[in-house]
Amino acid sequence: MKPIYLDNNATTQVDPLVLEEMLPYFSELYANPSSMHTFGGQVGGKLRQARSRVAALLGCAPDEVVFTACGTESDNTAIRSALTVRPDRRRIVTTKVEHPAILGLVEHLKKTEGYDVVLLPVDGEGNLDLAAYKAALTPDTAIVSVMWANNETGVVFPIPELSAIARERGILFHTDAVQAVGKIPMKLSETAVDMLSLSGHKLHASKGVGALYVRKGTPFAPLLIGGHQERGMRSGTENTPGLIGLGKACELAQTHMAEENSRVRALRDRLEQGLLAAVPNSKLNGAKEPRLPNTSNISFKFVEGEAILLRLDQLGICASSGSACSSGSLEPSHVLRAMGVPFTFAHGSIRFSLSRTTTDAEIDLVLTELPKIIDTLRKISPFNEQNAMEEEKPACGC
Amino acid sequence: MKPIYLDNNATTQVDPLVLEEMLPYFSELYANPSSMHTFGGQVGGKLRQARSRVAALLGCAPDEVVFTACGTESDNTAIRSALTVRPDRRRIVTTKVEHPAILGLVEHLKKTEGYDVVLLPVDGEGNLDLAAYKAALTPDTAIVSVMWANNETGVVFPIPELSAIARERGILFHTDAVQAVGKIPMKLSETAVDMLSLSGHKLHASKGVGALYVRKGTPFAPLLIGGHQERGMRSGTENTPGLIGLGKACELAQTHMAEENSRVRALRDRLEQGLLAAVPNSKLNGAKEPRLPNTSNISFKFVEGEAILLRLDQLGICASSGSACSSGSLEPSHVLRAMGVPFTFAHGSIRFSLSRTTTDAEIDLVLTELPKIIDTLRKISPFNEQNAMEEEKPACGC
Repeated sequence: MKPIYLDNNATTQVDPLVLEEMLPYFSELYANPSSMHTFGGQVGGKLRQARSRVAALLGCAPDEVVFTACGTESDNTAIRSALTVRPDRRRIVTTKVEHPAILGLVEHLKKTEGYDVVLLPVDGEGNLDLAAYKAALTPDTAIVSVMWANNETGVVFPIPELSAIARERGILFHTDAVQAVGKIPMKLSETAVDMLSLSGHKLHASKGVGALYVRKGTPFAPLLIGGHQERGMRSGTENTPGLIGLGKACELAQTHMAEENSRVRALRDRLEQGLLAAVPNSKLNGAKEPRLPNTSNISFKFVEGEAILLRLDQLGICASSGSACSSGSLEPSHVLRAMGVPFTFAHGSIRFSLSRTTTDAEIDLVLTELPKIIDTLRKISPFNEQNAMEEEKPACGC
Repeated sequence: MKPIYLDNNATTQVDPLVLEEMLPYFSELYANPSSMHTFGGQVGGKLRQARSRVAALLGCAPDEVVFTACGTESDNTAIRSALTVRPDRRRIVTTKVEHPAILGLVEHLKKTEGYDVVLLPVDGEGNLDLAAYKAALTPDTAIVSVMWANNETGVVFPIPELSAIARERGILFHTDAVQAVGKIPMKLSETAVDMLSLSGHKLHASKGVGALYVRKGTPFAPLLIGGHQERGMRSGTENTPGLIGLGKACELAQTHMAEENSRVRALRDRLEQGLLAAVPNSKLNGAKEPRLPNTSNISFKFVEGEAILLRLDQLGICASSGSACSSGSLEPSHVLRAMGVPFTFAHGSIRFSLSRTTTDAEIDLVLTELPKIIDTLRKISPFNEQNAMEEEKPACGC
């Protein structure tokens, strides 16, 4: 059974056109692009095209694109690079709602190397406080890293504005744009962003490829050291089929951006409004706007998110309770906690993330089934106030 | 025209059976293996099978396999991990003939962090001196890293013996086995190797995947920090199609190991013996044995390697003058220099690296064409002693 896949912020389907573009580079044009023979040169030429396509989506120059293996590698490279090129500075400024690839790293750097890590808070809608942001940017700050769009709520941060503030103060600015690239238009050449991370598998390319934008002239220290690939900025044989696919995916994202912002947004809004109307004691998490057009994070009071997901799964509906990178944990999402979402709501939160593959019929099914699921679960939930009271009564005596 | 591909140490063709195994995981079973829905679980299960297949080839337990994106990442992770878990030790012992992923890194660590880096020499056949090896292993040594097989000459180092010596001295032992895995049998559980790097695209899996073997109980510090993937030892969404392919490639390597060591070895020997017999002033670089069954590195005196490669390329024959990772450089190979190969020979060295896809007819063609190419080039070469003398005479006067 084909699943109803509403978990596109965890990963996306490789677009069949992307796969088609990749296919020749596995078993036919398989040469190493660093090889000097014509066979290698053919692959090298196609890789250059891929780099230009990525650059076109980002609004930057091709030689500002460094290919990597994933968003995590891009994030780790950016942060560690900034600390290396600014050895005299000891502060890292980021936010409480970043992806684990940033939060986990900066917590590690704080613990093992004593960096002064500032985690900026967000308000109840998931927005940053601009005054607090400015105040955190001391002369001792080596790097600011703020995500472009939140993976759990879709809330979009004002990256052009935030990066300009960092530049005014002579501080390097990085953004984890893994969820934003391909969903919202960007022209990096017109911003003050110094480094930006993206991940292929979030925009219908394959897993195993990513990129780090590094603005021309930005001081840089590579994470992976070895051969001369990526102009010495990232060693290791290039994942040519994957990266050629990434190029195609970026080209397609450009083509589909309008659809993402009209048809997909309309589907998401219909799902969101339908659920909020049909289910009492439900609420949207995060600001309504500016927000990614494909993401909706809704809390259902008095129920466990995991229980909802299980029932949805039985119907072939894929969603999540937060980041796939922290799933398996029973802790409520760090993003929702940072937003101050009350415990009884946070535990029953579900993230729906759509894509251009999502259909009307799929949304219809969720709108039909989910309210019934919530109703059933609430009847048996120990979190439900009424049930909780009933539970205090002695039961069957066994 | 299908190339005659004798550059398999640079990269290999993805085996069609590997690609077949990968294909469903791009656009059908594309879920994130960390996702909790059934769709994610299906992918997670297949990833576990891949891990077991890699472990079977290495002769280790599945939970000793950490998936990475490439050999360079594995190498960098191993070295940096050892330095982190042994912060009191300042020496790194390796060899002069390692891949740039080790040499480049340790040179960087020496320069930027002041590590005491010992590069062990090799003799004229590319072999290590065991006494010098033992003498280098001081109590201050954090890690020894010695490649299992050399990428340029195929010379095999005695890793079981070398690792045992390191263990006796309480020193962590890493081996870059990128060229050895799948070509020579290994059973890591019976060695004292603590960490081992492998790369998928060297054994007919796709580019963009690798692994790091980390023996159970080895102290370890991850390089990429973020989500909980790979039991916290390597964060970042797993490249599921690529890694599933790596599992299949390891299974196939096991199956084909005997062929690699009989049919491929015989083809290599026929090529090597044929060329050495047909071309005067040619010599084999590196010990005849123990050596990878697929590799032959031959020097042709008085000619430029690049010129030979160009002529071969015109006939659709792909070979190389050394590592693809350092191609483009006009310096003679660091491996041949370490072996003391004279300049007039080193400049004309060609690496032929075969695989199970190599055919008799391909070897026949090289044996027919290459001696003619060398002959032609020598007639016009300024390196040729006779030509050099002639060049000293005044020429046409222009």
